[in-house]
Amino acid sequence: MNIPELLQQLTLEEKASLCSGGDFWHTKAIERLGIPAMMMSDGPHGLRKQDETGDHMGINDSIKAVCFPAGCATASSFDRGLVERMGKALGNECQAENVGVLLGPAVNIKRSPLCGRNFEYYSEDPYVAGEMAASFIQGVQSQQVGTSIKHFYANNQEHRRMSSSSEMSERTAREIYLAAFERPVRKAKPWTVMCAYNRINGVYAAENKEALTDILRGEWNFHGFVVSDWGAVNDRVADLESGMDLEMPSSFGMRDAEIVKAVRCGRLPEAVLDRAVTRILRIVQRYLDGRNPDAVFDRDADHELAREIASQCMVLLKNEDHILPLSKTETAAFIGKFAESPRFQGGGSSHINCHKVESALEMAADYPVLYAKGYETSDDVVREDLMAEAVAAAKAAKVAVVFAGLPDTFESEGYDREHMRLPDCQNALIEAVAEANPNTVVVLHGGSPVEMPWLHQVRGVLEAYLCGQAVGGATVQILYGDVNPSGHLAETFPIKLEDNPSYVAYQGEGDVTEYREGVFVGYRYYTTKKMPVLFPFGFGLSYTTFAVSNLRTAQDEYQSHDVITVSVDVTNTGDRAGKEVVQLYVLPQTKTDSVQRPVQELRDFEKVELAPHETKTVTFTLHANSAFAYYCTQKKRWVVETGKYLLAVGNSSDHLTTEKMLTIHGEKALPAEITLNTTIGDVLRIPHADKELEKYAGAFGISSGSSDENAMGESTADMMEAMMKYMPIRGLLSFGGGEVSIAECKALVEKLNVLLENANLNNRSE
Amino acid sequence: MNIPELLQQLTLEEKASLCSGGDFWHTKAIERLGIPAMMMSDGPHGLRKQDETGDHMGINDSIKAVCFPAGCATASSFDRGLVERMGKALGNECQAENVGVLLGPAVNIKRSPLCGRNFEYYSEDPYVAGEMAASFIQGVQSQQVGTSIKHFYANNQEHRRMSSSSEMSERTAREIYLAAFERPVRKAKPWTVMCAYNRINGVYAAENKEALTDILRGEWNFHGFVVSDWGAVNDRVADLESGMDLEMPSSFGMRDAEIVKAVRCGRLPEAVLDRAVTRILRIVQRYLDGRNPDAVFDRDADHELAREIASQCMVLLKNEDHILPLSKTETAAFIGKFAESPRFQGGGSSHINCHKVESALEMAADYPVLYAKGYETSDDVVREDLMAEAVAAAKAAKVAVVFAGLPDTFESEGYDREHMRLPDCQNALIEAVAEANPNTVVVLHGGSPVEMPWLHQVRGVLEAYLCGQAVGGATVQILYGDVNPSGHLAETFPIKLEDNPSYVAYQGEGDVTEYREGVFVGYRYYTTKKMPVLFPFGFGLSYTTFAVSNLRTAQDEYQSHDVITVSVDVTNTGDRAGKEVVQLYVLPQTKTDSVQRPVQELRDFEKVELAPHETKTVTFTLHANSAFAYYCTQKKRWVVETGKYLLAVGNSSDHLTTEKMLTIHGEKALPAEITLNTTIGDVLRIPHADKELEKYAGAFGISSGSSDENAMGESTADMMEAMMKYMPIRGLLSFGGGEVSIAECKALVEKLNVLLENANLNNRSE
Repeated sequence: MNIPELLQQLTLEEKASLCSGGDFWHTKAIERLGIPAMMMSDGPHGLRKQDETGDHMGINDSIKAVCFPAGCATASSFDRGLVERMGKALGNECQAENVGVLLGPAVNIKRSPLCGRNFEYYSEDPYVAGEMAASFIQGVQSQQVGTSIKHFYANNQEHRRMSSSSEMSERTAREIYLAAFERPVRKAKPWTVMCAYNRINGVYAAENKEALTDILRGEWNFHGFVVSDWGAVNDRVADLESGMDLEMPSSFGMRDAEIVKAVRCGRLPEAVLDRAVTRILRIVQRYLDGRNPDAVFDRDADHELAREIASQCMVLLKNEDHILPLSKTETAAFIGKFAESPRFQGGGSSHINCHKVESALEMAADYPVLYAKGYETSDDVVREDLMAEAVAAAKAAKVAVVFAGLPDTFESEGYDREHMRLPDCQNALIEAVAEANPNTVVVLHGGSPVEMPWLHQVRGVLEAYLCGQAVGGATVQILYGDVNPSGHLAETFPIKLEDNPSYVAYQGEGDVTEYREGVFVGYRYYTTKKMPVLFPFGFGLSYTTFAVSNLRTAQDEYQSHDVITVSVDVTNTGDRAGKEVVQLYVLPQTKTDSVQRPVQELRDFEKVELAPHETKTVTFTLHANSAFAYYCTQKKRWVVETGKYLLAVGNSSDHLTTEKMLTIHGEKALPAEITLNTTIGDVLRIPHADKELEKYAGAFGISSGSSDENAMGESTADMMEAMMKYMPIRGLLSFGGGEVSIAECKALVEKLNVLLENANLNNRSE
Repeated sequence: MNIPELLQQLTLEEKASLCSGGDFWHTKAIERLGIPAMMMSDGPHGLRKQDETGDHMGINDSIKAVCFPAGCATASSFDRGLVERMGKALGNECQAENVGVLLGPAVNIKRSPLCGRNFEYYSEDPYVAGEMAASFIQGVQSQQVGTSIKHFYANNQEHRRMSSSSEMSERTAREIYLAAFERPVRKAKPWTVMCAYNRINGVYAAENKEALTDILRGEWNFHGFVVSDWGAVNDRVADLESGMDLEMPSSFGMRDAEIVKAVRCGRLPEAVLDRAVTRILRIVQRYLDGRNPDAVFDRDADHELAREIASQCMVLLKNEDHILPLSKTETAAFIGKFAESPRFQGGGSSHINCHKVESALEMAADYPVLYAKGYETSDDVVREDLMAEAVAAAKAAKVAVVFAGLPDTFESEGYDREHMRLPDCQNALIEAVAEANPNTVVVLHGGSPVEMPWLHQVRGVLEAYLCGQAVGGATVQILYGDVNPSGHLAETFPIKLEDNPSYVAYQGEGDVTEYREGVFVGYRYYTTKKMPVLFPFGFGLSYTTFAVSNLRTAQDEYQSHDVITVSVDVTNTGDRAGKEVVQLYVLPQTKTDSVQRPVQELRDFEKVELAPHETKTVTFTLHANSAFAYYCTQKKRWVVETGKYLLAVGNSSDHLTTEKMLTIHGEKALPAEITLNTTIGDVLRIPHADKELEKYAGAFGISSGSSDENAMGESTADMMEAMMKYMPIRGLLSFGGGEVSIAECKALVEKLNVLLENANLNNRSE
C-alpha cells in the first residue's frame, strides 16, 4: 500500500470509518482500494480467537487453543528468555490463525492483591513488569505479529473500571505506573498500545493527550497506533485529537459520523484524522508484509512448551525439613479437587478454550498416589464426607499434598476480590489434613496472594499461580524433583489484606481513586515501613542452596552520566543443579528533605543456572542517570541528587547478602527560585549566599537580645538554630528589630537570585 | 469606648497602626483617644509573661510563674472539669499580671509522634482535642481574660513550619484538622484565634480567606479577632482582606504603611480595615471591662493545684502482678536523673520560668528510698560508674523505679524529633536495672510516645508525660497509692515509628506536605489496618478494675435529625475507689462505595468516679446528624448515609465491652447528576430508573449473544453482572449491537435526570 497515495484516494467518510472496528475483532476493510481488514485477538497467555462473525459482546466461544501460564506466573520465572520463547510460540499461533495483533502483554502494576485482573499482570514492580513485557513483545513480534501492550495506564482495579479516575502525582505516575510501560515501549517497540478504560487525574485514558501523545510518542518514540480498550471511547473527536487512533469494537458507524461532522465543521483538522489513518494503515501494512501462510498451530507442541514454562514459574515458598521433593516410591495423598481438575487460568477476555488440560493426578499416574476430593468449588461449604475421606487419605500416606486455591468466581476480569482469603472450606481442609499428617504440603492455584492462617501447620508450600493447561505435569515434575523449582515472587505476599499500602484507599470513593501511597507500592512500602510480611518480594526457594557475594564495581565514586558495571559471585552451595534469581537493589543513603524515597528499589535481576558447587559471576550494567534517579514533579524531569547510595544484591528483597556504598555526583538540591518566602536554610544551600546573609546575623542573633541562654528551656540553642533555618527572608521584618526594611529584603532577594542562577549553571554539569 | 465613634476619629494611619503590635507582646495604644495597649502572653500551661520591654525575639526571661501539666498530660486526664479549673487559675494569674489574652490552648492534631510541639497539643483525635480546648477556654475566660486558640490550622510539624504547605482534601480538613477547632470555637467562644505559620493547600494560613472568614466566622460564628502567629504575616494587605486582623509582633510601622498605601490607592477597601480595627477594639474593650485589679497571683496555691491536676493526668500503662502501688515501708530504689531533677515541660514559647520545682526524690523523703543518678542528659553516653551505682541500688531495693524520658533537647518548639527512641543510655540503664531486679517500674517523662524495647522486662510503666512543676509530688502520690491513677492515653503509642500512618509522608517534600493518610490519623488508622500497637488510644490502667456493660438506647432505629440518648453501666469491680474513662465509639457497618471510613471514631467520653463495687449509669447524648456523618468533599457538606451503625463503649479504643446496632435513616447515595458516563449501577440507585433501563436489557444481555455461558470462564455470569454494573450509559453504543443511537442515549440521560431530581427532593427528608 502506498499510504500517502491512499490518503488522497480515501473519502472523508472512508478515512473516518478506518478509525473504528469493522466488527468486534477486525479493523475495517476498504475493498475498492485494496485495504484489507486485520484481525486482533485477545490473549496475553494464549489465543482467544473468536469465530469469524463474533458476537456483539465478544463473549462467544473461541477456537481451541493452548493456555500458557498467566502473567502472574511468567513474571515469577524472572526469566526473560523463557518469556520471549512463549511470545514466539504465540506469534506463530497468530500467523497460523491469521491474527495480525495479539492483545497483550498486560503490564499494569499490582497495586492491591484484590484487583480482579492481577492474574494477567506481572508484578508490583515496574522494572520486573517492564522487562517481562519487553521479552514477551520481542517474542511475539519476532514472528511478524503485532502486540498491544495494555492497559495504558493506571488501570489497577476492576471496580468501576470504566468510570473511576486514578489520581496520583506525576512522580508516582512516572516512577511506577508509567514506568511499567516505558521500558517495553522503548526497548521492544510494540506495534500498538491499548489505552485503558479509566480516567487518570480526571481525564479518560482515551483522551489523555499528555499520556498518548506527549509521553508515549514524544518522549518514548512510539510509532504504532493506539487502540481503545473495547468500549473505552468517551468523546471520539477529543480521543482522536489526543492520539487515540482506533476505536474498538465497531460503533456501527455512529462515531465515524461524529468524526466526519467534526472535520466538516472545522472542529477537527483533517490532518489529525489523516495521522490516525496513517498509523493504522502502517500496521496493517506490516501485518500484510509479515504474513506467513505456512505457519502451523501445533497445539500439542505448544502444550509441551507450556509445561516447560510452567515448571520454571512456580515458587517454592516453604520446604521445612526438605519435605519436598517427594519420594517416587512412597505413598502420597493428593487432596483437593484442583489435583484432579486444576485451576490454571482466570476469567474474562484472556480465557482460553483449551485443546486439552492435564491434571497433577493424571500426570502422577506412575507414582503411588491416593486421591481425595476434599472440597467442592461450587460453594464454600465444609462437607464432612469429603473431609473424612481426605483425612483418611492423609493418614494413609507418607506425605499429604493439598491442592488448594481460588475458585474461578473468586478472581476474574470485571470485578475485584473482596478479601484475600481462600474459601473457608479449603482452610478447614488444610488444617484437618495437617493435623492428620504432619507431613503436609500445600500447592496453591490462583492469580494472587492469599492469607495462610495454616502456614505454621504445614511443612511445604508451592505457589503454582495460574500456570496454564499443562500445570499438572509441571507440578508433578517439581513435586517429585524432576525439575528444581526456580520461581521467585514478583509480588509481596502480605500477612493480611489490611497490610497492603493501598488498603484504606483502594477502589476509591465514588469515581475518585486516590493513589495515596504514592510510589510506596509493594515492597517499596513494606521495606520502608519495616513491616513483617508472609513472603517478601523476590523470594523463592530451591532444592539446592545458593550464596551471593563479593559485590564489586571499578570505582567508589561515579558521575550521574556514568555507566556502572556491577559484578557479584553466585555459588550453588548444594548438591543439585538449580537456578537462582539474583536481584540488584539501590538504597539511597543521603537524607534529603526534597523527596521521600523508598528504602530500596530493584534496578536489575538475572536468573542464573548453576551445577552443584559451581560459581558464576553475574554482571549488571547500571546507568547512573536512571538507577539513582527520582522523578521531580516540580522540575518535571528526572533528578539524580549528589549523595551516597548503597548497592545491595541478594536473592530476595529482604535477603541482601552483599553490598557496596557508592558516592554519586549529581545535582545539589537548590531552591527553584528565591522569594521573600524562601527560608534561610534553603538560601544557605546556594554557594556564597552565606556572605550575603552575614550582615543580618546580628538582627537575628540570640546573643544580642537574650539575657538567658536557657530562657526557653535547655533546648533554646537548638530551637534558635532550627528557627533560623526555617525562617523565611521576610522574617527579617518581624524579628529584625526594625533594622531591616522591606526594600532591603527585596534587594537581598534579587542578589540571591543572581547567585542561584550561577549555581544552577554549574549544578547539572557537576 | 464607643467603637463606631472612634472609627470616625482615628486617622487612616492610626487605624492601620492598630492592626499590628506596639512591641513584641502588646497591641498598640492611641493615647489621644484613650485606647490602651493590651498585653498578650504565651502559655497554654502557665504564664510566660516577659518584662515590660521584652526583646525583639521574645526570648528573654519571663517572670516567675507556675508551670501546670502540658497539653499532652491534661488531655490524658479526659477530665473536662479539671482542665476548666486549670484554665480558671491561669485566668486569675493573667488578671493579677494584667495580661488581656493568654496565648492558648494549642489544639493541633498529633499527626506524627515526631512533631516537636506535640507536648503542647492534646490528642490525635479532634473530639478529645476539641473538648479539652473548650474546657480550657471556658476556664480562662470565666476570669474575663481572653484566650487565643492556636495554631489555625494544619500546623502539625515544626519542620519548615514557616514555609511548608499542608495539603489535604476538604474531607480530611473538616473531619480531623478543622474539627479540633470547630468544637471549642462553637462551644466556648474564644476571644481570639491565632493563625498558623504554614500554608494550607498552598495558601498561607494568614491569608486563607476560606478558613479565616468563610468557615471560622461564616459557619462557626466566631466574633473575636484573628492574630498572626508571631511572624506569620506574609502579605499584610491580602492577610487583612482574608480576615487576619492583628499582626504580631510589631513590624515597626513597615507593614502598617503598606495598609495605608493600599487603602489610598484603592486596592484595599477602608471598610476592611475598619472591620479589623473594630474586632480588635472590641476585645480590648472586653479586656478593660473585665479587669480585676484585686486578683492575686498566689504561686504556692497554684502549685498545689498543679500537683492535683498532675496526679489526674498520668497514665498507668503496665502493672504486672500489682507491682504498684509501692509499699511505704519497704525500700525502693529511685534511679535516674529525672527522679532528682524531673523533666516536666518542653522548650519554646510555652516554657515557664518556674517559681519552684519539686522532684519525686524530695517528695518521697518520708519513705525508705535509695537514689542513683543512672545517666546524664547532657549527652547520650553510657557511664559505667553510674550504671554500676544504679544496679547496686536496684539490687538493694524491693522495687526499682527508673525515672526515664526525653531530655530537653529531644523535643521542643522549632524542630521535630528525628526518631521515637529514648536516649540509648537510658534504654541500657533500664535493661541493666531490670536484670538486677525483676521488680522494676519505669516512670516516663516526655511529651510524646517513645519506643519501649525493654517493655517485656519490666513489671510496671507509668507515663508521666510533661506534668508541670509539681510532677514530683504527683508521681509519688501515684507510686505509693495515695492517688489511684486515672489517666488514659489521648494518643496511640505505636510499637515503632514506622508504624505511624504519616511515616512515609511526614514533613513532606520541600515545602509540600501531603496528608496522604487522609482521615486515617492515629487510632483511626491502627484499628482500620488491624495493626498491633504498643498501647492503644484511650488505654489506661487503675489500681482497681472496672466493667462497662449494658449499652442501651430507647429505639433501634433513628432518623438523621434525632438526638439519641445512650446509656451504659459502669461498675468498680475492685476494692479501691477509682476513676474510669468511659468511651463511646461509632462503627459504620454498611459498606458503601462513596466513602472510605475508619472502622471506629470516638464520639463522646466521660470520666466517672466510683467507690469500691459501686455502679453508676453514664449517659451520652448523640446528635445523629454529626455522630454518624462524614464530610462529603464533592457535595461540600456533611452527609449521614442510611445504614447500620454499631455503637460500642469501653475503656479503650481496643477494649469495647458493650455494643448495640442501630439503623439510621439518612440519605441514600445518589449520583450527583446523570451523564453519558454514569454507570448503569449508579443509575439503578435512582428509584424507578430500572424501568427506564428495561428496554435496553436485551442489547446488553448475554443470553442473546452467547452460545456458551462459560465461554469466558466459570466466572462468566459474575463477570457479566459486574460489567453491567460498571458500564457507562455510553456503553450502549459499543455493546448494544448497533441498536441504540447516540440521540437515544442522550434522551435516556435526560429522562434519568428528571428521575434523579425527584429522588433528590425526597432524599434528605427521608
